[in-house]
Amino acid sequence: MTPRLAELLPAIKAFIVEELYPLEQQALSTGFYELQPVLDEKRAKVKALGWWLPQVPQKWGGMGLSLLEFGILSEYLAKTLYGHYIFNCQAPDAGNMEILMEHASEDQQERFLKPLLNGDIRSCFAMTEPEFAGSNPIQMGARGTLSDGSYRVTGHKWYTTGADGASFAVVMCLTDPDHTNPYQRASQIIVPTDTPGFQLLRNIPVMGERGEGWLSHGEVMFDCVVPQDHLLGEAGSGFAMAQERLGPGRIHHCMRWIGISERALELLCHRAATRSLGQGKLLAHKQSVQNWIAESRAEIDAARLMVLNTARRIDAEGAYAARIDVSVIKFFVANVLQQVLDRAIQAHGGLGMCDDLPLAFWFRHERAARIYDGADEVHKERVAKYILKDYLPDTKNSHG
Amino acid sequence: MTPRLAELLPAIKAFIVEELYPLEQQALSTGFYELQPVLDEKRAKVKALGWWLPQVPQKWGGMGLSLLEFGILSEYLAKTLYGHYIFNCQAPDAGNMEILMEHASEDQQERFLKPLLNGDIRSCFAMTEPEFAGSNPIQMGARGTLSDGSYRVTGHKWYTTGADGASFAVVMCLTDPDHTNPYQRASQIIVPTDTPGFQLLRNIPVMGERGEGWLSHGEVMFDCVVPQDHLLGEAGSGFAMAQERLGPGRIHHCMRWIGISERALELLCHRAATRSLGQGKLLAHKQSVQNWIAESRAEIDAARLMVLNTARRIDAEGAYAARIDVSVIKFFVANVLQQVLDRAIQAHGGLGMCDDLPLAFWFRHERAARIYDGADEVHKERVAKYILKDYLPDTKNSHG
Amino acid sequence: MTPRLAELLPAIKAFIVEELYPLEQQALSTGFYELQPVLDEKRAKVKALGWWLPQVPQKWGGMGLSLLEFGILSEYLAKTLYGHYIFNCQAPDAGNMEILMEHASEDQQERFLKPLLNGDIRSCFAMTEPEFAGSNPIQMGARGTLSDGSYRVTGHKWYTTGADGASFAVVMCLTDPDHTNPYQRASQIIVPTDTPGFQLLRNIPVMGERGEGWLSHGEVMFDCVVPQDHLLGEAGSGFAMAQERLGPGRIHHCMRWIGISERALELLCHRAATRSLGQGKLLAHKQSVQNWIAESRAEIDAARLMVLNTARRIDAEGAYAARIDVSVIKFFVANVLQQVLDRAIQAHGGLGMCDDLPLAFWFRHERAARIYDGADEVHKERVAKYILKDYLPDTKNSHG
Amino acid sequence: MTPRLAELLPAIKAFIVEELYPLEQQALSTGFYELQPVLDEKRAKVKALGWWLPQVPQKWGGMGLSLLEFGILSEYLAKTLYGHYIFNCQAPDAGNMEILMEHASEDQQERFLKPLLNGDIRSCFAMTEPEFAGSNPIQMGARGTLSDGSYRVTGHKWYTTGADGASFAVVMCLTDPDHTNPYQRASQIIVPTDTPGFQLLRNIPVMGERGEGWLSHGEVMFDCVVPQDHLLGEAGSGFAMAQERLGPGRIHHCMRWIGISERALELLCHRAATRSLGQGKLLAHKQSVQNWIAESRAEIDAARLMVLNTARRIDAEGAYAARIDVSVIKFFVANVLQQVLDRAIQAHGGLGMCDDLPLAFWFRHERAARIYDGADEVHKERVAKYILKDYLPDTKNSHG
Repeated sequence: MTPRLAELLPAIKAFIVEELYPLEQQALSTGFYELQPVLDEKRAKVKALGWWLPQVPQKWGGMGLSLLEFGILSEYLAKTLYGHYIFNCQAPDAGNMEILMEHASEDQQERFLKPLLNGDIRSCFAMTEPEFAGSNPIQMGARGTLSDGSYRVTGHKWYTTGADGASFAVVMCLTDPDHTNPYQRASQIIVPTDTPGFQLLRNIPVMGERGEGWLSHGEVMFDCVVPQDHLLGEAGSGFAMAQERLGPGRIHHCMRWIGISERALELLCHRAATRSLGQGKLLAHKQSVQNWIAESRAEIDAARLMVLNTARRIDAEGAYAARIDVSVIKFFVANVLQQVLDRAIQAHGGLGMCDDLPLAFWFRHERAARIYDGADEVHKERVAKYILKDYLPDTKNSHG
Repeated sequence: MTPRLAELLPAIKAFIVEELYPLEQQALSTGFYELQPVLDEKRAKVKALGWWLPQVPQKWGGMGLSLLEFGILSEYLAKTLYGHYIFNCQAPDAGNMEILMEHASEDQQERFLKPLLNGDIRSCFAMTEPEFAGSNPIQMGARGTLSDGSYRVTGHKWYTTGADGASFAVVMCLTDPDHTNPYQRASQIIVPTDTPGFQLLRNIPVMGERGEGWLSHGEVMFDCVVPQDHLLGEAGSGFAMAQERLGPGRIHHCMRWIGISERALELLCHRAATRSLGQGKLLAHKQSVQNWIAESRAEIDAARLMVLNTARRIDAEGAYAARIDVSVIKFFVANVLQQVLDRAIQAHGGLGMCDDLPLAFWFRHERAARIYDGADEVHKERVAKYILKDYLPDTKNSHG
Repeated sequence: MTPRLAELLPAIKAFIVEELYPLEQQALSTGFYELQPVLDEKRAKVKALGWWLPQVPQKWGGMGLSLLEFGILSEYLAKTLYGHYIFNCQAPDAGNMEILMEHASEDQQERFLKPLLNGDIRSCFAMTEPEFAGSNPIQMGARGTLSDGSYRVTGHKWYTTGADGASFAVVMCLTDPDHTNPYQRASQIIVPTDTPGFQLLRNIPVMGERGEGWLSHGEVMFDCVVPQDHLLGEAGSGFAMAQERLGPGRIHHCMRWIGISERALELLCHRAATRSLGQGKLLAHKQSVQNWIAESRAEIDAARLMVLNTARRIDAEGAYAARIDVSVIKFFVANVLQQVLDRAIQAHGGLGMCDDLPLAFWFRHERAARIYDGADEVHKERVAKYILKDYLPDTKNSHG
Repeated sequence: MTPRLAELLPAIKAFIVEELYPLEQQALSTGFYELQPVLDEKRAKVKALGWWLPQVPQKWGGMGLSLLEFGILSEYLAKTLYGHYIFNCQAPDAGNMEILMEHASEDQQERFLKPLLNGDIRSCFAMTEPEFAGSNPIQMGARGTLSDGSYRVTGHKWYTTGADGASFAVVMCLTDPDHTNPYQRASQIIVPTDTPGFQLLRNIPVMGERGEGWLSHGEVMFDCVVPQDHLLGEAGSGFAMAQERLGPGRIHHCMRWIGISERALELLCHRAATRSLGQGKLLAHKQSVQNWIAESRAEIDAARLMVLNTARRIDAEGAYAARIDVSVIKFFVANVLQQVLDRAIQAHGGLGMCDDLPLAFWFRHERAARIYDGADEVHKERVAKYILKDYLPDTKNSHG
């Protein structure tokens, strides 16, 4: 905990509890677009208070927090439903900002990055395809074919979060599908969503909700022609940039999950302490509930220490050095999250099942935490193979 | 497996796969009311085929299956979304039929039971109250006050399944709140939903969905006056009748959960066998997935044997004799269900999260399986206290 | 439950409780050889009572129970430490009896089977080798080389249960190591332990105990010459005979584990009901303990139903038809066993850790239940691959 | 990691691997007394190298490590069987040293502490009683009755670790059993084991082993008279001193468990990388094994961070401030330990079950980790009640 953050945090916490918690009821029963005016108003306050873009360097108008500092802050933002959005550090925009700050041309930055930083537009990242397993990232159907100074970008993507209403998509596609190095076949190309041939087939009904706007996952079909200068970075660097994005992206998720878990535990404790079982007994007096509280406390503490420790390592040594740590926390924290949410719902009974509280929302949508950005099984394999390298005679260590 | 059922089952299975599975896509994306014409058409077919009301005695127009036979059939009905509804053996109507067959006057049967059996109307059962813990069933706020040959029924209920569109509610309320025996304080009273003062406050947004019609859970407020002859059975017998209802109700749920689990496992296996991971490998080749399949197979087999064994015992000895067996399966099978669903979703990745398959629907709504009709914790306590009776000096065996 | 067994069981149960439970203290603190006179005395009683060799056909002097009947009996035998030994149905002798009844020549039966049935000698089965993974049964170092009417049997085996004091070993070895069908390379050869070159290197210190006699696991080195007529069955049939043995062997283990689990639960309940926590509270009043009792009840009931159902299937259709069922119960019941034992120990605290009760003995030695006769992982793979056959285009379904 | 420790650690690690690992085979097959000459020789080396008494302040001849530093070191000591003993920081002597440094008179320190620090004698701590539940520490049968300048100390204790061969016991007993404050009823009295009336009834056979010397758990009966000046600290302070001892004692255990877990994971990885399954496949190629490795890595990392974080807090704020953190790690780390050991044994198959490796030793004896110094259930209740204080109206928050 740095002095800077220690100074800011109490005010931010108070803002979250006093200004954002009261939005939850409405947020749970209203679509994104209807809610947007309120969200915009809160965003304006955040800007005025100097907390806008906490994860972004000061030269780009952000707070310039280290990843460790951001991790501490992010936990608090995650305790409510639109926290990250209101501070403009939400996925997938935060990831797009990062890539654009790092790899975009000045022109691209002017046109796409600046309005994104300013909160004027939203963006999306089109990577996952229904036909190919995400566990094998070099498999992909989308193509970017260069001819006459333009890329024709074709493909079928889904789980393109926030495609609905986004101004542009960063599209992952194969621009050199026969390159001998499979990791140099893909590029990332910026495709404005008003380009002819960009088609949002549907907002996927995820866990019963199509959602809308930022809170939606699009299935997108495109056959678009964009100028060659919409290429992001160098041709063939798409896979490398995706890796660059996903490492921090994953720890950002972990940070969020800790905040959700902590809030769920608070709700659990509050419920336990106030729910009467009759005859002077409270839910808090049941040993099963006490077990849930203690186990959740232990698991969340473990998760937080691991995440902050990984953030510190990334700050010090870079994302590549900490890639295995990131895989470890990816599956560990996702499982903590789901256990804590499950217990909190169980303690609430019928109230836990319904949208009078945010628990049911998190329960159903964060089921995906063990799937997106690498399923548990993928990360476990990666961790194990890395560890086993020291024990095996050579590095071709697994068919498994 | 009786000869009668062995003869019928192949045709029923075929009907489910051929006629009901194809409805799932629509069922997952459409409200109950829009779907109802199709459901009615299927109901007509089921009637014509002689499979209507499988759980109801022949003298009332049903198939007259034993509970064991129904358990076997029910598994198949549960493999798809509207199976039980189409055979008119869905909760809460099936429970109301049972109570009405057993305890209603001829008049009540004529007016409420017959159209229910015929599928002309739906009904609901108003028991749970938001202000009181279900684990202590004698706590209740609803009142039924008799004066001048009428009951004034007041109360606030929620999770009144299918209240939306129901013709009548069976309402659990205290008619003699000061009776020295707390188990004789409550009665069940039939309240037609068009009675003035009956107010469906909302369909509760459960896991993001308010639903409608049969597929909804109502929050109901009422202050209704009904004639005294709307009392079901004797005054003060409400708790006993609720017990009578809940025992079979619980095993009916267990039977359904086995069908859902079995279907989820089928989907898991199908996914594993068809999902390519590239380089000639399938998801089915991953040992983690194989573990999920084998563990699911074991757990579902265990669950089925326990449920059918309990059904046999109820057929032979009655529900009271098997009440502890019912508590055992209630928590055991609910947990099997959730584990199997969780694995099936994990194996499907993004596809498992969305409503292109029924998995996500079951995952989010059947989270309640560990809550409704007695939370896991309540049943475990009951089972343990029953077992401990043989070891403790006396029966006042727990403060716990 | 057949009438025959229903009639016998009460007396057998009483015998176990009254005559065998009291031996436990001594059994836990004494070696096998010191205990043997008492065991022999009990064996004589069992013979006199007509309960000797319950699993063996009447023509061979046994009770001739079906596998289902034996399963029910076996549970009771397993509730104490030497139950199976005292009834002469203990591994590995019971398996050797079975093989000898089925495949031995008259001469072999006269010389090896009859004294075994009579309880005059013990035997062992030498299969597992330290150098080769048991998950791949065709890998083996032991050789049986035929020349001049004799087999020279060489090899290094371990976990040869009861080798110490056995009169003969049935040795699995490759007699035709280059046979194109790898499943026809092995044979089983009877090697009397007094054959020159038979060397019991040590009783392996398993979980801190070398044990002795029947209760030991030998590491054996041999280079023995035996007459050709010590070959059991036909040359090359060793693998098939091993399969024949292991199927029933596995269900026999499962039957035992249910008895151990049931006894552990009884001890847990007894402890809970008698352990004071002060201020009038008992361990039985703690909800955690109640959870353990209820969960154990559910799991043991599930395990028993699955085992008896599998036994019935083997009785009706033979071991091959039920081989997948056997794999399912092998890992399912082994895990139930260890969970129940773990809970029972936890409830006993320090008393559970020490050998004043049989819990600690079972806890440490039955840790092997998830390893011997096929580790959990091996059985899960087998079950999954079998199930997946119906979903995959062909049967070469896994690299896994 | 402090510079001092960073400098020392490589040499200490090398010492452990090169000088102590090779003792394991002998240690696993030999009694403590037979091993003692070798242990003494290693102790002499440790003294010469300046590593003696790492946890003890320099003024008492130790290294004066902070608790955080000791935590890091302790992990390495725990990777082998006699690590702590050889550095003279083993339980229960380390705890007795601490109490004696803090509370003993100069005379007592001269007579009991100095030879203990020097490694000339061993000691024990007699607290647990078979008749009373450890979860309620104020219940106790032992009495210390003062008359004529002497205490008559009577009682029945068990799990008095290392009583066999100890020179003195610190005995917890009630000296003022009727004090209105139940936490001021007990005192700690030093009882030399050669005092008449001190009777080591037996070394308890724990998990099949009575053990001997330091590696044993005694059941002790005493009726001893000792001079009044054998009282440790003030009369009535026994409970407070026990708390003082148990806090650090618990974190010392947690530090050890991390080392054991880490070693178990190393053995698991080594096994996976070297065990052939035939056809060019290794155990390391199995996804189940990879899952075990990754999950163990995550859990051990979590455990270590929590333990070191708690150590830092104790260093900074004292044991009382960190008492809930200590309860959290007590149950969390104990469970990590047992899961990791279980996986390591499973991966080793038969080899894991036997004493050719230390895994089986740890598996059986560290089963007690979830029992001693407060069972999991006791710590979970404590943690939950502490957390719930902020949610409940008053502090009398549980009957539970």
